[in-house]
Amino acid sequence: MQNPTAAMLVIGDEILSGRTRDANMYYLAGQLTEAGIDLKEVRVVSDDAPAIVAAVKALSGAFDTVFTSGGIGPTHDDITADCIAAAFDDHIDVRADARALLQAHYDRNGQELNDARLRMARIPDTAMLIDNPVSIAPGFTVQNVHVMAGVPRVFEAMVASVLPTLTGGAPLLSQTLRIDRGEGDIAGPLGALAADFDDLSIGSYPFQKDGKYGANIVIRGQDGARIDAAMTRLKADFPE
Amino acid sequence: MQNPTAAMLVIGDEILSGRTRDANMYYLAGQLTEAGIDLKEVRVVSDDAPAIVAAVKALSGAFDTVFTSGGIGPTHDDITADCIAAAFDDHIDVRADARALLQAHYDRNGQELNDARLRMARIPDTAMLIDNPVSIAPGFTVQNVHVMAGVPRVFEAMVASVLPTLTGGAPLLSQTLRIDRGEGDIAGPLGALAADFDDLSIGSYPFQKDGKYGANIVIRGQDGARIDAAMTRLKADFPE
Repeated sequence: MQNPTAAMLVIGDEILSGRTRDANMYYLAGQLTEAGIDLKEVRVVSDDAPAIVAAVKALSGAFDTVFTSGGIGPTHDDITADCIAAAFDDHIDVRADARALLQAHYDRNGQELNDARLRMARIPDTAMLIDNPVSIAPGFTVQNVHVMAGVPRVFEAMVASVLPTLTGGAPLLSQTLRIDRGEGDIAGPLGALAADFDDLSIGSYPFQKDGKYGANIVIRGQDGARIDAAMTRLKADFPE
Repeated sequence: MQNPTAAMLVIGDEILSGRTRDANMYYLAGQLTEAGIDLKEVRVVSDDAPAIVAAVKALSGAFDTVFTSGGIGPTHDDITADCIAAAFDDHIDVRADARALLQAHYDRNGQELNDARLRMARIPDTAMLIDNPVSIAPGFTVQNVHVMAGVPRVFEAMVASVLPTLTGGAPLLSQTLRIDRGEGDIAGPLGALAADFDDLSIGSYPFQKDGKYGANIVIRGQDGARIDAAMTRLKADFPE
């Protein structure tokens, strides 16, 4: 059976300018693999409305589930919520449920719910809120798109709120064998193995360390016994 | 004057499965920023021919320059070169110039240029080779697409081979101010600043550390004097 598919859209000039190294993509990829959801594509776009709207439409149409990261804070460059509304022809304004969450939070902390903070209560009409136990301002879900914050701690908390609501597939199992030979020596037998085990995904990830070549061979699939069988043959092909 | 634009296509199941954290995107983003080339979009797709071909066509048509990373080694899962040929309706086979490079390299090392290694000499007819001083097997350029290896050391060496051949723009300058207040307190004056300095890009990157909120405000642009002026006003808005 085919696992559900997913895509991720990272919204953020800070990744594209090289200022920040991605963390959320790496985190989400690991979580989805465990949940049996196949992450098929990631796009990173800048804080540019037409680019965000086009990517949301394309990914939402092509995959079962889409996760976005970034651009839902209180500052002028936070335009994700309005772009999601535009992508789905949805109406957007400050929503009473989100406003109540923020009002209670800032009242507790003795802070003012000013115009900027109120921007974080702008939620499309048809959206369901995503719980944010870290900093309260909610994410939201419109159709198959889950809109989450870019700050890694908040992103991770929102992923934890969303994942249990999704139907996963069989978790992707994997085994890895490190072979200390060049890929050119490995490729022949490995190609034959991949052809004979075409229900599995067999990848070769070369490395170079201290001037020596090697590769990590990763065998992935949903059937542990098949992976065992392929791994046994791989080890016989390349005895230590 | 508008800087040239670029996109990156990362080909690799290892990123999408969460096995590996991206390094090449982070490296390339920093290099392009220094060179005055605006990285506008990154896509990560799996080792799947239709997905690779579609992404190459889309990015090549939309941006001045495209960089790809991954999938040009000797193993069965290395399908990038054939996908590039397909995307540009180019013919591809083992090419004499690439074969000669590999032959000399393996002769020097007393290794056999077997069928698997010969796959790395499969280069589209219209391509120019990209020098690989690390492990010899070349990258290549077809039209505006530069095809490079995924192993970070080799990727970085190929970027160094390609970058001097590109016409850059004005390097993007930036200054950062860390403000130890919540974004909700910063957003009002920051939005007014962004409106008055609309020739600059002003981003707010919030963080949370030890339970305290803050944000790094990054002001980017090509005109150092304008950035100075905006930074002076920002510091006046938020005295320490």
